[in-house]
Amino acid sequence: MKQPLLMHINSTVFLRDGKLVIMDRRLFPRSIEAVICNNYEDVAHGIEVMAVQGAGDIAITAAYGLYMAAYDLECQHLSPEQVRESLSAVKERLFKTRPTGFHLGALLDKIWSRIVWERGDIAQQIMAFIDTAVERQQKRSELTGKWAEQVLEDGDTVLTHCFPGPALLYMLYYARQKGKRLSVIATETRPYLQGARLTAWSVSQLDIPVTLITDNMAAYCMNRQMITKVFTAADRVAMDGTVANKVGTFQLAIAARYHELPFYILGYGGPDRTCAKGEHIPIEYRDPEEVTSFSGVKITGDLVQGIYPAFDLTPPHLITGVITDRGIFQPEHVAEYWERRYP
Amino acid sequence: MKQPLLMHINSTVFLRDGKLVIMDRRLFPRSIEAVICNNYEDVAHGIEVMAVQGAGDIAITAAYGLYMAAYDLECQHLSPEQVRESLSAVKERLFKTRPTGFHLGALLDKIWSRIVWERGDIAQQIMAFIDTAVERQQKRSELTGKWAEQVLEDGDTVLTHCFPGPALLYMLYYARQKGKRLSVIATETRPYLQGARLTAWSVSQLDIPVTLITDNMAAYCMNRQMITKVFTAADRVAMDGTVANKVGTFQLAIAARYHELPFYILGYGGPDRTCAKGEHIPIEYRDPEEVTSFSGVKITGDLVQGIYPAFDLTPPHLITGVITDRGIFQPEHVAEYWERRYP
Repeated sequence: MKQPLLMHINSTVFLRDGKLVIMDRRLFPRSIEAVICNNYEDVAHGIEVMAVQGAGDIAITAAYGLYMAAYDLECQHLSPEQVRESLSAVKERLFKTRPTGFHLGALLDKIWSRIVWERGDIAQQIMAFIDTAVERQQKRSELTGKWAEQVLEDGDTVLTHCFPGPALLYMLYYARQKGKRLSVIATETRPYLQGARLTAWSVSQLDIPVTLITDNMAAYCMNRQMITKVFTAADRVAMDGTVANKVGTFQLAIAARYHELPFYILGYGGPDRTCAKGEHIPIEYRDPEEVTSFSGVKITGDLVQGIYPAFDLTPPHLITGVITDRGIFQPEHVAEYWERRYP
Repeated sequence: MKQPLLMHINSTVFLRDGKLVIMDRRLFPRSIEAVICNNYEDVAHGIEVMAVQGAGDIAITAAYGLYMAAYDLECQHLSPEQVRESLSAVKERLFKTRPTGFHLGALLDKIWSRIVWERGDIAQQIMAFIDTAVERQQKRSELTGKWAEQVLEDGDTVLTHCFPGPALLYMLYYARQKGKRLSVIATETRPYLQGARLTAWSVSQLDIPVTLITDNMAAYCMNRQMITKVFTAADRVAMDGTVANKVGTFQLAIAARYHELPFYILGYGGPDRTCAKGEHIPIEYRDPEEVTSFSGVKITGDLVQGIYPAFDLTPPHLITGVITDRGIFQPEHVAEYWERRYP
């Protein structure tokens, strides 16, 4: 299978000579350049400035940051207790880089809870957890893509927003394997243009026809019957089926409902068990300059403020189904994910 | 009254030494530069590349192009019949620059039907018509703004899209004169960013607080109760109350209805009497490169296509009222504009 660059986390985020290499997603596809992280602080900064993107990939990247910090601390011959104390601050620092996504905090907590501090080989333990997490994430992407493929029909045109990650690519790949002819419309996804740069580009690498639109054209395209189904990812799913995802998702869901189009969420894993209701999900506000400027060039007057909520909440009643590695759930029943075993 | 640059057509489009000067709206507010048009073809090109923008202002600019062509033809000592024949091709050329807007064709047709060809002073006749049209347009903007002001309440936050022209500015100006405290949220309006560059900037020049958002944030802001009313302009209103306006308007209208927010159209003049239904309005498709590039820089892969419908259609049932110089109409009754006299 021909795999585009973004289909596997380790194609764009990997350790080399003790440094974390992040292929800078802000520059794709115009140029392929690496951000080299020498320590956990570099990793935290890389996440904050969005050199890496997507809830799952951000989580793995943060875990690498935790590993690097553990490694550096162990080199200083500190006691396990001292390592633990310092590493706790590192975990907090990494956790705070992006508040909305579920996977970042969940993965760091999971690793943390499983470290056997007395054993001493903290960095090595963390690395083993990361390897497992990468493998699990890859498996989840493939399984989610396989479930998603089942709702596609020959001739479908899929609208998507931001970069929904590898599950979208697997979905398209498996659908085509079954002879379904598909095409994709990608919103450019301002202000970071992940749709233009990551999604449209990755889909085109799969040789599937893909058309780019600005974010304000989606309803027009729906109305002209150019779209048959909508798929986006989720940065966090609450237990009540509310979905937090890249800002603009909610607006698309409203437009899809108006046009009676199915609106699916590529949820990968299950909902956040610690988050009963959507309204509890924190919405990250980013630097308004990312809105008032483009590529460093100011696009408005000096007296104009900007705001940049990076995510929004889509209520369950606008969602047709949440597609996970364990099957497809009606959003109102997504909490049942945790009772369902792998098929 | 302190008038921002875009409040009167002749502050940005005017004749000087026989040449038409268009202050290039694509560069506002970063730089104030002029496009100098030596002949009608330059004018047509200036309209096509969107150095001027907004249905009413485009119409006046095109009329100046017709004037310049008539002047040049008369200098060649042609017979009125020959002038008429050549000028007919010029009119056609100017008419075809932007197909969706109503005012361009309407103004050229009106001028054409009133020229007394035998009199010979064609250019002079056209100039008199232009002067009247400019005055009428200015009057319409002010009256529309006055009617619009009446629906505003103290504390309103107005969402708008693209650059709805001087009526929006007059509305805000008159509202503030009455002591109503207002603020504005402007969508940036991709791909040309008229919202960021023209609307947000002009509103800030009136000392009214204005916040810029990307096009995909509108529903989020509505949901967080940051918006109380929505106003956009119209490039053409059909007799059935369907509104053609900058692409994205329809999507906002759907989101406004979902949130039960009033959605008003600043219609200026009346609907197009030759256009019974919205579906008859031609939608202009512009160069896809305007979507796949930003400021001349490619933002996606080479295998990715773009599409650029520049306008969309908002059906009457999503519109609260069409605000004109003759009052406010329910969209289903906007055809009655033509029976109503000025108040």
